Amino acid sequence: MSDIEREVRAVAERARDAAADLAPLSRSVKDEALLAMADALVHNAEAIVAANAEDVARAREAGDTEAMVDRLALTTERIEAIADAVREIVELPDPVGEVVRGSTLPNGLELRQVRVPLGVIGIIYEGRPNVTVDAAALCLKSGNAALLRGSSSAYSSNTRIVEVLRGALEKTAVPVDAVQLVPGSGRDSAQALMRARGLVDVLIPRGGRSLIQAIVRDSTVPVIETGEGNCHVYVDEAADLDKAVAVTVNSKTQRLSTCNTAETLLVHAGIADRFLPRVLRELRGLGIAVHGDDRVRALDDSAVPATEADWATEYLSADLAVKVVGSLDEAVAHIRAYSTSHTEAIVTDSQSAARRFVSRVDSAAVMVNASTRFTDGGEFGFGAEIGISTQKLHARGPMGLPEMTSTKYVVTGDGHLR
Amino acid sequence: MSDIEREVRAVAERARDAAADLAPLSRSVKDEALLAMADALVHNAEAIVAANAEDVARAREAGDTEAMVDRLALTTERIEAIADAVREIVELPDPVGEVVRGSTLPNGLELRQVRVPLGVIGIIYEGRPNVTVDAAALCLKSGNAALLRGSSSAYSSNTRIVEVLRGALEKTAVPVDAVQLVPGSGRDSAQALMRARGLVDVLIPRGGRSLIQAIVRDSTVPVIETGEGNCHVYVDEAADLDKAVAVTVNSKTQRLSTCNTAETLLVHAGIADRFLPRVLRELRGLGIAVHGDDRVRALDDSAVPATEADWATEYLSADLAVKVVGSLDEAVAHIRAYSTSHTEAIVTDSQSAARRFVSRVDSAAVMVNASTRFTDGGEFGFGAEIGISTQKLHARGPMGLPEMTSTKYVVTGDGHLR
Repeated sequence: MSDIEREVRAVAERARDAAADLAPLSRSVKDEALLAMADALVHNAEAIVAANAEDVARAREAGDTEAMVDRLALTTERIEAIADAVREIVELPDPVGEVVRGSTLPNGLELRQVRVPLGVIGIIYEGRPNVTVDAAALCLKSGNAALLRGSSSAYSSNTRIVEVLRGALEKTAVPVDAVQLVPGSGRDSAQALMRARGLVDVLIPRGGRSLIQAIVRDSTVPVIETGEGNCHVYVDEAADLDKAVAVTVNSKTQRLSTCNTAETLLVHAGIADRFLPRVLRELRGLGIAVHGDDRVRALDDSAVPATEADWATEYLSADLAVKVVGSLDEAVAHIRAYSTSHTEAIVTDSQSAARRFVSRVDSAAVMVNASTRFTDGGEFGFGAEIGISTQKLHARGPMGLPEMTSTKYVVTGDGHLR
Repeated sequence: MSDIEREVRAVAERARDAAADLAPLSRSVKDEALLAMADALVHNAEAIVAANAEDVARAREAGDTEAMVDRLALTTERIEAIADAVREIVELPDPVGEVVRGSTLPNGLELRQVRVPLGVIGIIYEGRPNVTVDAAALCLKSGNAALLRGSSSAYSSNTRIVEVLRGALEKTAVPVDAVQLVPGSGRDSAQALMRARGLVDVLIPRGGRSLIQAIVRDSTVPVIETGEGNCHVYVDEAADLDKAVAVTVNSKTQRLSTCNTAETLLVHAGIADRFLPRVLRELRGLGIAVHGDDRVRALDDSAVPATEADWATEYLSADLAVKVVGSLDEAVAHIRAYSTSHTEAIVTDSQSAARRFVSRVDSAAVMVNASTRFTDGGEFGFGAEIGISTQKLHARGPMGLPEMTSTKYVVTGDGHLR
């Protein structure tokens, strides 16, 4: 076992012990600790900004773009906003202790299925240091110990932020080791975290495709895949033209770089002549480059030819793949072949078309006459999310606090025997 | 890619296609197919018994014990009982389509979280051929395609049973490939199944510890761990003596070889003098061998000394490890150190002791004044179970039909934009 592996396991063992002490704590104890964390962030804002300046300087030296540097940079105002986000988590209900189902069995045994924390949650994430606070707060609120493994680019910021959060916990009943940074910033420390099966209950990666796929491949700790979104809008033959244009444009352009942004537009052949010229003109006006199949290019010669890769790509950019399909079922088949099962939308006024699309498309969220951009914990009213799961086990779609828990059965009798 | 790997992937791809067609089918279609399967088993009972005779002969040649041969053997009566179990599954509600939660968002969007099948479920199991039918029926009822990988010892029986089940599906609207046997009976075919990530949604192993641990280690497909039960009974200082004896004896002796059988008894020092002589006398009368710590052996010199291994062992035999503890918290600490987190019981008349035990013990089921033997899908009123999950992600405790599903969000608007 390497030194870093030994260090990571030691941290994970402390997290395991902290999780056991954290699990039975009541909501009020956890909320006080969260408020103390928010206050400490504001009080120590200048020290955090100073640590962040080291990361920013390193990023500039490494030649990062100004957009990347801006994502990394913290200011006093940004830290206040991060603290406010923690205060919003305080307001959310505590999922722990919720009775998910309960009954009295025929023999008089009282059966209750109760929400309990998962235990130790490892978060492996890229980029922005606000995720450090956000993940720690969501874990604490749901009674879980957090093992935070941020990117090396934010290592100074993350180190100082976690010091501040742990300092705040020292004055509360929450164990300090409920929030820990995983030591090291190299690949070996992430690998050690992925191998800590039995100590870490789940890993939630937050970042790009390559990060997530590497973790899924290498981790023996169970992983919840999040965030990859090759999302589709299908405009049905029976669509209202105005709604179809509006939903398509909003799904693609309201924000280019999010996982719920549409990347492919599928159009029924029966409406293509009327719909495509309008929507493509509008998209072009907003700076979107269209990658089209032959039928699209026959209607719009500025479109570049779509290749096989275009159908499979999550652009996260001002690009859109566009294809004309002969039927709803052809759209469904295309989605099955290429989608990452995040979010797909249909625009139609036909009840039967909507019903068929909803039942045949197997994605975390299926939108009917609504923008793909709505797949979001905040929009769904969950208050906060740790990520959007694109897998089918445990949690699917936006993961709020209840998705960060497990359950246990509590069975109460009076000397009951079988 | 080896031949067997290619074969297994081809089977998994057919399962994937079948799952897509199976998912939208209504309950009545699935129930008709299940009834056809039950009828076909009865009609083909003699052919199945003949195939089973080959497995039985092979087991006898290999020198299996008569108990093992009996577990493997099928008779016409046993096949009728297996068919009846399928008919009972028909009576259970269909989890698919259940609206788990729903609301209308402030902007008027209708949000519904709906149960959907997981897709393709792989079952890797040992021994008894009745599991073949049981797993296939539970998967079909919950809208999932089943990939069945039984042990080589039951290969002839399983092959014939799956032929009969698929023959029954041919006359129904359920795709025949919803039920498939994984080709091959060697380790390479199981390995290929474990590597079919993207084609198989979840693997559920049913069998002994070494089988399950091997799958957890090697599988890139998500696994639900089932069944390992190093279960504890803790007799508190405030226990009613009669109930404590009855619950202990029932937990240990009602059936020796099940996962919810108690393997360790923890006794509070304040009640040990009164409780232990009584319970040990009764257990000895039932043929149970006691492995005790020093304090136990001081009260009962027929007990053999318990070693570290005894605390960690799921005996599945007429053995019981017994330890005297100084406090409830010491019992909880022992359980945390050695339990497989399946089922633990406390016997006490103290509300505060029960409350503390329930909140501190992190197991799939926690019993208060009731036998550990109650952790069971049938006893819990779920009607049937595919296994008992001892992990925290996705499902914990007895897994009924709802635990064999995922969910999807269906969001309906009227041209809603963000």
